[in-house]
This record gives sequence, C-alpha cells and structure tokens, in this order.
Amino acid sequence: MAVKPSIPKGTRDFNPQEVNRRHYIMSVLRSAFEGYGFQPIETPSFENIETLTGKYGEEGDRLIFKILRSGDFLSKVPADVRSNDNPNAWTSFIADKALRYDLTVPFARYVVQHRNELAMPFKRYQMQPVWRADRPQKGRFREFWQCDADVVGSDSLWQEVEFVQLYDRAFGKLGLKTEIHLNNRKVLAGIAEVIGASEKLTDFTVALDKLDKIGADKVVEEMVERGIPSDGTSKLLPLLSMSGNNEEVMNFLEDFLSDSEVGKKGLEELGFVLNQVNALSLSSAELVVNLTLARGLDYYTGAILEVKAKDVELGSIGGGGRYDDLTGIFGMPGLSGMGVSFGLDRIYLCLEELNLFPEDTSKSPDALFFNMGDAEMAVAQKWAAELRNAGFSVECYPDSAKFKKQFDYAEKKGIKYTVIMGDREIADGVAQVKNIESGEQEMYTLDQLIALFRE
Amino acid sequence: MAVKPSIPKGTRDFNPQEVNRRHYIMSVLRSAFEGYGFQPIETPSFENIETLTGKYGEEGDRLIFKILRSGDFLSKVPADVRSNDNPNAWTSFIADKALRYDLTVPFARYVVQHRNELAMPFKRYQMQPVWRADRPQKGRFREFWQCDADVVGSDSLWQEVEFVQLYDRAFGKLGLKTEIHLNNRKVLAGIAEVIGASEKLTDFTVALDKLDKIGADKVVEEMVERGIPSDGTSKLLPLLSMSGNNEEVMNFLEDFLSDSEVGKKGLEELGFVLNQVNALSLSSAELVVNLTLARGLDYYTGAILEVKAKDVELGSIGGGGRYDDLTGIFGMPGLSGMGVSFGLDRIYLCLEELNLFPEDTSKSPDALFFNMGDAEMAVAQKWAAELRNAGFSVECYPDSAKFKKQFDYAEKKGIKYTVIMGDREIADGVAQVKNIESGEQEMYTLDQLIALFRE
Repeated sequence: MAVKPSIPKGTRDFNPQEVNRRHYIMSVLRSAFEGYGFQPIETPSFENIETLTGKYGEEGDRLIFKILRSGDFLSKVPADVRSNDNPNAWTSFIADKALRYDLTVPFARYVVQHRNELAMPFKRYQMQPVWRADRPQKGRFREFWQCDADVVGSDSLWQEVEFVQLYDRAFGKLGLKTEIHLNNRKVLAGIAEVIGASEKLTDFTVALDKLDKIGADKVVEEMVERGIPSDGTSKLLPLLSMSGNNEEVMNFLEDFLSDSEVGKKGLEELGFVLNQVNALSLSSAELVVNLTLARGLDYYTGAILEVKAKDVELGSIGGGGRYDDLTGIFGMPGLSGMGVSFGLDRIYLCLEELNLFPEDTSKSPDALFFNMGDAEMAVAQKWAAELRNAGFSVECYPDSAKFKKQFDYAEKKGIKYTVIMGDREIADGVAQVKNIESGEQEMYTLDQLIALFRE
Repeated sequence: MAVKPSIPKGTRDFNPQEVNRRHYIMSVLRSAFEGYGFQPIETPSFENIETLTGKYGEEGDRLIFKILRSGDFLSKVPADVRSNDNPNAWTSFIADKALRYDLTVPFARYVVQHRNELAMPFKRYQMQPVWRADRPQKGRFREFWQCDADVVGSDSLWQEVEFVQLYDRAFGKLGLKTEIHLNNRKVLAGIAEVIGASEKLTDFTVALDKLDKIGADKVVEEMVERGIPSDGTSKLLPLLSMSGNNEEVMNFLEDFLSDSEVGKKGLEELGFVLNQVNALSLSSAELVVNLTLARGLDYYTGAILEVKAKDVELGSIGGGGRYDDLTGIFGMPGLSGMGVSFGLDRIYLCLEELNLFPEDTSKSPDALFFNMGDAEMAVAQKWAAELRNAGFSVECYPDSAKFKKQFDYAEKKGIKYTVIMGDREIADGVAQVKNIESGEQEMYTLDQLIALFRE
C-alpha cells in the first residue's frame, strides 16, 4: 500500500463539524457587519506580485507565497541572474503572482481600482483565507482566515464609536465576554513628546508594549538603552505604575499631556470615543483605555483597538485602528479610514474551550430510512422526498445491508431517528420510527412523522 | 499618480451584489446537499505537489499552479539540473506545493487520510475555489468555484437515483428548468463491442460526442479514420439517426445490445435509474437518455450525468457520474462512489440572463440616519442600536455633510429610508422618515419605525 497521503504543514482539513462551526462564527460576524451597513467583497486568492511586495516590510516579503510562472519560466531569467546564487534575484523573474498575505492590501488595491463605482464612504467586509510562510505552531497556520471590516473616505470619530459597538455586538452574539482595549497613536506621540522621545517613537512604543511582561523598571531600562533620555523616562514612572479606571487614566493624561499639541488632540479623540460609547452603553464588552497598546504603530494614525476574551487565556481575538493613508501606496493619497479584524481561528478556540457553540451546528440528518430491498426502498424514497419538501434532512441507506450495519451508520453520523418500512408497514401506510437517543419506537404515518420532526 | 492597479488575468474581484448572489446560489446548493445527508468538508488551498501531479494527465500537470518554495529554493536544485534549460526538470526542486486543481483529488486524499474517522458510505459536499493556468476566455477563469457532492463506499444504484433528484431539487429551487442527460459507460462499451470497436473505445466516444455538431455521416467518417471497421460503423447508423423518447431509445438498445454482456448490464443500470426516477417524478427537470454523452469516459465506470439549462444557451451547468476506484491512486483501492458537480459561475450567468435572482440578494441597509451634528448623532445612534437589536441593518452617516451629499450616498447604496433627527424631532421624540423610492415622508417614533421596517 502506498504511503498515507498528507497535507502541507501549517494547513488543515476541516471535517463537517469544524466547517459548520466555522460557518456559524462567520454567519454571526456577517450579520453583525451587515447590521452596520458593511457590504461584502471578495478579491482573488492571488495578486500580481508587485501588488504585494514592499507592503509588509522585508520580513513580510519573505513570508509571501509566490506562484511559479506557468510555461517556460527559465527563459524569463536573464543570463547574469542565471549564474547568481541569491534566490531573491530570481524571484521576480520566475514568479509573477503571489498568494494574498492579508486582506488590507487587496482592499486598498480594490478601492483604487474600483474608485469610480464606489459610494464613499465605502464600508466593506471581507472574510477570506490568507497565506503566510510562517513557521507553523500552536494556533498559527500557513493558511488561515481573516474577517475584516473597514470604512474609508471619512475621518469621523463616530466610526471609532461604531467599531467598538460592532465588536461588542458580534462577540455578545457569540456569547463571549471581552475587554476592548483602546489607545490612540496621537496620545502615544504626545507622551513621547513630553518625555523628549519624539524622535524615538518606535523605540518608545516597543519598550512600552512590554510593560505587562517585564514591569515598569525594566521598561524604563530598555528605553534608556534605546537612547531615550533618562530625565524623560523618570517622568514616565507615575504613568507606568498607574492602575486606575478609564476616568482616572484620562484625568492623569489631561495633566501629563497639557504641553503637547498632538497629545491633547489624541486625548480629545480618546475622550470622544469613550464618552459616546459610555452614553450608548455596551452589552457584553468592557472598554478599557490601555496606554501600552501599540499594534503596528507605523500603520495607525489615530485610534488603536484590541480585543481580548475574558475567562480564557488566548491573547488577542481581534484588533484594528484608524489609518490615514491606506490607498496612497496605489496612488490615491489622503483617504482616511478605519478597520477592524476578527481572528476566526482564535475565536473558534475560545468558543470551543468555553463550550459556547450552539448544539445545532452539528447539522446531522434528521432521519435514516433503512434499506429493506428495492421494492420497499421505492416507497421509502417517496416518504424521504416529502420530508425533504417539508425542509428536513433525510438519508436513505443505499444498500440492503444487515440491520446492525445500517443502525451503526445512523449512530456514527449522529442521525436522530431511524425509519423502517417493510412489507407490513407499507401495507398499513406507516413506518417504524425509532428515536436513537431515547430508544423509543413507534408507528407513524407520513403526516405524523412530519409533525414529529416539526416539534 | 501611480499606474492604476490591476489583478492577474483570469481572476475576478466580486462586488457586494456579486458576493451576495453567489452566496445565494451556494446557500441553495448547501440546503439541497444537506437535505440528502451530505456534510461539508474543506481542504487546504494548496496540497503537497506530489498529491496533485500525475492525476490530470500531461496537459493537466502543465495547468497546475505551483508554489515556489520559501527560503533558498536555488540550493535545492542539483548541479546537473542547474544547467538544464527544461523548466520541467526544475519544477520538482523549486516548488513543493501546488494550488488545488479540482475538488476530486483532494477529496480522495481526504478519504484515505481520514478513513478511520469516517462513517461509510461517506457523503460529503465541498464548495471551494480551484485554480487552473488555462488561457482565460469568456466564462473560463483561472480562479473559479466548484460545488461538488460525492458519496463513496457503496455501489448501490439508488445513489444515481438520488443524484438525479438532487439536481432536480437544487435547480428547481433556483427556478431553473433543466434537462438532465443520462448515459452509462457500460452501454457505451456495449455499443462499441457490437460494432467491433472494443479496442477503440476512446476513439469511438470522441467521435460519437460530436454528433450534435457534425452530424451522423461525419461521425461515421471520423470513426473509420480512427480505425473502426466500416462494417461496424454501418450498424451504428440507425442509432445515430434515432430521435425517440427515452422509452424508444431503451427499446432500441435492448435489441441492439442483446449480444453484449457489458451492454446488457449497462442497460439494466440505465433502466433501473430511469424507472425509479419516473416513479418518484421530478419537479422541474427532464431526464433524457443521451447515448452520445461521455464526459471523460476514462474516469467513469457506470452512470454519466450532465445538466443543461433550458431557455438559455450556456452549455453544461453540472455533471458527474459513477467511478469505481477514486481512492486507488492513494493506495485504498476498490472504493466505489459517485459524484456530481455544480458549475457556480455558469449557474450565475443563467440566473442573471433569465432574471431569476431574488430581489433581496442586494441586502442594502434598511435606513440611513443623517448626521446633523454630534449632539443629534448621539441620539440617532441610540435609535440605530435599537433598530439593529430588532434585526435591521442601519447606517449612520459619519460626517455632518450637506443634505444632498448624505442623500446621494443613501441613493447610491440602495438604502430604503433616510431618517432625519434634528433638535425639534429629538425634542418631540420622533424622526423624519423618508421612503426614497416613493418619496413619502412622515414622522415616526422609534416603535413606529420598527413596525414600519417589520412590514
């Protein structure tokens, strides 16, 4: 016998239960997105390679899956490259397409390409797989799904408010209690300004981001190592050791940022979002101002969001923020927007761990008609067709196998009822119906059976 | 300004209406599949390259999109290959994965890999994109969707009966009238035997397949050119010129195949399916015995199916058949099965041409709340949240722009109602609601508005 076949590392087969549960999550997200007027788009799995390269940094470029040109790719390689041993020199000649690395760059490309067809502000959601040649590990895959909602074409802060509500609504529907962490890039820039680290904003946030893990002293130490003046970092200590509620944090910042224009602007934005969300109130989530939240700071220009599930240790299950120039890379500058992402795989793990999937995601058929021979099956098929017309899922066992085999099949597939129609039942216009779970068995006419399933 | 970005040839962006319409088709198919007890699986977009190569013939191998190894792929190329100018010699060294070419081979791989978890017979459906480096043309794409249902682990002819019913049910739900063409590989083998072309079965069917296009005389001519004895082809003429209904075709075959064992077996199978389907009756489709139908004969071993839409010239919108050894390629021989495929893109074109998409696939938001300033918006957002709680899709315009701009946005997005809440309305606890289509405008309380949308 041949070697048992396998799939590439970092990829997954999904069995029926997994597919149904993933669809359940996506259908909750879909209806949350649509509740706010987001509409779905889909983009091709691969893009022209120049659409993707240079958008994710050097490390990102390395992790993009490139597709080999079809046909004679070798003839595209110039003679001087042919003798070069550096694969990067080759790539652009032998690969002209690449698999989607995220949904954001294809979205930007879509907006620019279709700008004349779009109603602005343009609100879209997109739920598709993306691919990264990352080293696979627990919870990190080479093929995984992103579920993104973005709006471009307006810098109104009401969108920040709506995205917080959207997170609350979607996770609430899934039964997940969450903390939504909120920060603002301008607040971070303001803090950096106050401590004299404006030129070192990235170093500042990289170190700040580690507060939870290494503590305030080590953060300050790292900042100094990274060249931030120590008289600045000493100003930071009260901020690092602060553990108040949102109001206390805001009050502290008001004072702390009073000399920074950008900081005051950020504080104003933060305050608007916080106040409006409080006025509207959240159903299941808690909004937390978190000054250490940065999430790819280079990219975001205003609000920064991150969602963590309560009751389970799984890191972030969503995140996003405000950006000011998404489409500039494709020659359409100045389009402000904001977007959030839902991490399908992590959400799945949360729901599984907390036992929050609804029972009916298994979608097992309602009944199995036993095969008692062709003549009997011809009648069973008629009943089965009527039950399907009434909206039920019904199987007919294909072969007139032994009872035990047919029964085992029903049990293994999680089917609720077995239905037996032999000569006698057919003559009487009834069927023997057994509830597999309870063991109860009774005779039913077709109408009675439909009524039973309707219960 | 930079060059306008584009997507690779043969791929497509789908706009919201297209996504919703495609989802509509897939949801009809999904519920048809589930009505018969098929359960969904999904497999990775790419497979190990050796899983796919050698399964689709030489031409197929050429059309498979291969993924460049990440990292230093050049170091994998042996020195003697490095000087070779034949790209095929290189491919296996620099590419280790390939994009799914169809759903059948990944399904076979899945069955073998997961054999111990599966209830046999195993009924699965799968709706995922596949990729082929074919020359793009009208209706033929490099990325397209297949929707397949297969059952493996039983050779019962009841499955042929059920697949015909499934086609009828699914296309009926979509409002499409169809002809389901039915043939049987054993009948074709029997006819070939009778005319002395058993050794030339492929030549025989390739020529036979052209009957509609080139007529009986030319078909016979081609068969003779392909080495089929002319005393055989002369026997074929009455069959080629026959234009009766199913019963007449069956009667003719009974006589024609009386000396062929395989032919009689095929006829028996054909008769069983025909009789059982007739007894159960179809709702929207017509079942037609079509002796020229072959569809990749090498693959099928029994029934062969093909579906054509009536009232529109679009070729086949579905097809399938019985195979006896799907999983043999992965070392698990002797597993008989049958499967059918639905051509999503062609079905889409049919529904579009015949104007059969339901109106509500547009899924435009129910209402747009105008932005009259922050204070007013804070109240509008509360109403919007209540409407969303009641299940409606509601947008709030982000900026307090001019009325015309907000109104144009609503119109362009197909939104049904605009809702205006200024100072006076808020003081009175009402909103000015306008039906964009009819132009009607009235004051509503929140409860009245919910009631209006519920209509």
